[in-house]
Amino acid sequence: MTNVQSTHFDALQTIGINSKKAAASLTGLPTAAKNDAIKSISEALRSKAAIILDANREDLEAGRAAGLSESLLDRLMLDESRIGAIADALIELTAIDDPVGQIVDEWERPNGLRLSTVRVPLGVVGIIYEARPNVTVDAAALCLKTGNAVILRGSSSAIRSNMALVAVIRDAIETVGLPADAVQLVEDTSRETAARLFKMNDVLDVLIPRGSANLIRTVVDQATVPVIETGAGNCHVYISESADKEMAIHIAVNAKTQRPSVCNAAEKILIHQNWPHTAELVQALQWEGVVIHGDEGIIDRADGVLVASDEDWAMEYLDLEVAIKVVSSTEEAISHINTYGTRHSEAIVSNDTAEAAKFQIGVDAAAVYHNASTRFTDGFEFGFGAELGISTQKLHARGPMGLPALTSVKTLIAGSGQCK
Amino acid sequence: MTNVQSTHFDALQTIGINSKKAAASLTGLPTAAKNDAIKSISEALRSKAAIILDANREDLEAGRAAGLSESLLDRLMLDESRIGAIADALIELTAIDDPVGQIVDEWERPNGLRLSTVRVPLGVVGIIYEARPNVTVDAAALCLKTGNAVILRGSSSAIRSNMALVAVIRDAIETVGLPADAVQLVEDTSRETAARLFKMNDVLDVLIPRGSANLIRTVVDQATVPVIETGAGNCHVYISESADKEMAIHIAVNAKTQRPSVCNAAEKILIHQNWPHTAELVQALQWEGVVIHGDEGIIDRADGVLVASDEDWAMEYLDLEVAIKVVSSTEEAISHINTYGTRHSEAIVSNDTAEAAKFQIGVDAAAVYHNASTRFTDGFEFGFGAELGISTQKLHARGPMGLPALTSVKTLIAGSGQCK
Repeated sequence: MTNVQSTHFDALQTIGINSKKAAASLTGLPTAAKNDAIKSISEALRSKAAIILDANREDLEAGRAAGLSESLLDRLMLDESRIGAIADALIELTAIDDPVGQIVDEWERPNGLRLSTVRVPLGVVGIIYEARPNVTVDAAALCLKTGNAVILRGSSSAIRSNMALVAVIRDAIETVGLPADAVQLVEDTSRETAARLFKMNDVLDVLIPRGSANLIRTVVDQATVPVIETGAGNCHVYISESADKEMAIHIAVNAKTQRPSVCNAAEKILIHQNWPHTAELVQALQWEGVVIHGDEGIIDRADGVLVASDEDWAMEYLDLEVAIKVVSSTEEAISHINTYGTRHSEAIVSNDTAEAAKFQIGVDAAAVYHNASTRFTDGFEFGFGAELGISTQKLHARGPMGLPALTSVKTLIAGSGQCK
Repeated sequence: MTNVQSTHFDALQTIGINSKKAAASLTGLPTAAKNDAIKSISEALRSKAAIILDANREDLEAGRAAGLSESLLDRLMLDESRIGAIADALIELTAIDDPVGQIVDEWERPNGLRLSTVRVPLGVVGIIYEARPNVTVDAAALCLKTGNAVILRGSSSAIRSNMALVAVIRDAIETVGLPADAVQLVEDTSRETAARLFKMNDVLDVLIPRGSANLIRTVVDQATVPVIETGAGNCHVYISESADKEMAIHIAVNAKTQRPSVCNAAEKILIHQNWPHTAELVQALQWEGVVIHGDEGIIDRADGVLVASDEDWAMEYLDLEVAIKVVSSTEEAISHINTYGTRHSEAIVSNDTAEAAKFQIGVDAAAVYHNASTRFTDGFEFGFGAELGISTQKLHARGPMGLPALTSVKTLIAGSGQCK
């Protein structure tokens, strides 16, 4: 056992050392060289699709034998069309501005020192994720674009697909003269190596978990390296007294039903006690097949509503299910959201701009909407051209993360012999 | 034992709940109200100096009885003049721009959504620190200025001083109508409460350790809440082949000797093999009383040099002691610094701007100097008007941290009924 463990650890140590070397050689690389590498990956994915699909089939067979659910198998599955979509997305990524080298600030001090703060790569980025093999390509390309080396740790159910994809990626970037070790996969998917990865402070500048709430919680609890937490969305739509009837129903139904399984879908609706259209809203949701839980105020005003329990207010259904509550004021709505929300996306529907401003200031969340659906919290919808996930923490990056979230800064100081 | 522990935990839980309430009421507070609170603290410190000094005297007596070193006692000690300096610094803080409410970015999407990203308080900030009671006031004021509630956890050796200071602060801010719980002290200085604080993810938006490398390491290793790491400085001055003799000696001596106990002091000097003034540099350092460790190249070129061991290259002396190494190229200097440095502050002395640019790009550190002393890495020297410490991590804040490091962002989205 000790020998097996130390073998794991040595493999991981080698990955760590090689990552740091690769990161050093990516530093200061021109944007064109990084884009060439990404284009090379895009071409290689298409030309070597057969190899990737063979490996993916083996994962799918093993997954079926192990009794994975149909939805997990679907997330794991690749085909020509999905590989084509991944390859297309890489070409789109090459068109996005490279944040590295951008000057964030420039200034001069009275002693003549000239300072400039510039964006630089983070260094070595760790990504730990589940099932979906498209994340393998996505994460590798986003890290390359920002000059970071990446250590990928996917799940055992996708290991054959990931090994095939990473072999293709490494070969493609080596072809254009970049170090293959810029992209490395942890092939040992045991818990022991994951636990070891969580504590590689000498190697990882950041570790980003992408996947279930459970995975994210484990990483946050166990990691000593810096983590960017991407998380749950218990999002609310608050319909104020002055809300337009049609707009409120449209937004609430869209936010709940347009894609109920995602983190920016609404899970709760709060309605001001004087808004007169609660019954119609409940009906509109029911027509879309939504199961309604409500407090007493809702049960009084509408039919076919289940009694909401205390747990409902904190729950993320991720399904055609919603809990609705009557509140007596905007303050009560804000307080309820700040108590039960997950600081992701919150919306107010209101024709009163002062009230909307109060809500937007008072609600503590990454994105606060006035008269729009919560479903727009997304890197692409925000116009970032790429998305690394949606941060629900407050340090470094909050909300949809574009490429700058994979960068740090460095201050360059030019002097003429200044001493203190 | 179980009872004692659960009592600790309940006290801490109460602090947590009260902090979150206070944070909510600080959100959106106008700058003037926050400045009034800081002025009120400044006045109260002067008017209640006698009470504070009495408590501090008790700490000093207990410290002497416990055998604390003179330097620790000096860091613990307050007198009229030190309290006056702390009170003056608060008035200066009121003049600094309030980052909260600043618009970081504004844009519009093709669907008509108007987005604006604004700076907001982090929420609840935890500070864990050692000995120096001035940090108590400093941290409280910086957090107030940025609209954050703060939980302070100082060391047992300063507990009486801290209790007196926090009582004065709470009273002063309540006088101007702000909640006293915006500033709370953890009075139980046991390891158990510290360990519990490290894991209060529901309360703390960030935990900032200020103090010894040992304290910082403990927090990084044990905390599950987000941490801003402030750390060690194994800073280098690299004297290139083209370096001006007078400037190089001036900078190296200043960086090493001007205040050897601080993190931005130079600990290592690297000299290009063709720079002809090594003996004179060594002599200049020896005149200032610096003990010199050197590699073979230095021992060949200068007198009175001790043999540097492998440990020397990684060591932070924080004293009149330095290790010097001869390198054969700028690449070797960069590689040595990236291997042994702590990513804090690094300098090149060179008359070749292309070489300086290569060094500034290649060296991975928060601040990289060309022809200036490393001693300028400091919030005040950078012109920030305040300093929360120097971050040696890459996420959120890097290098000297000004007030914006205590803020997050929030994106406000204005629509007219947009749905996805």
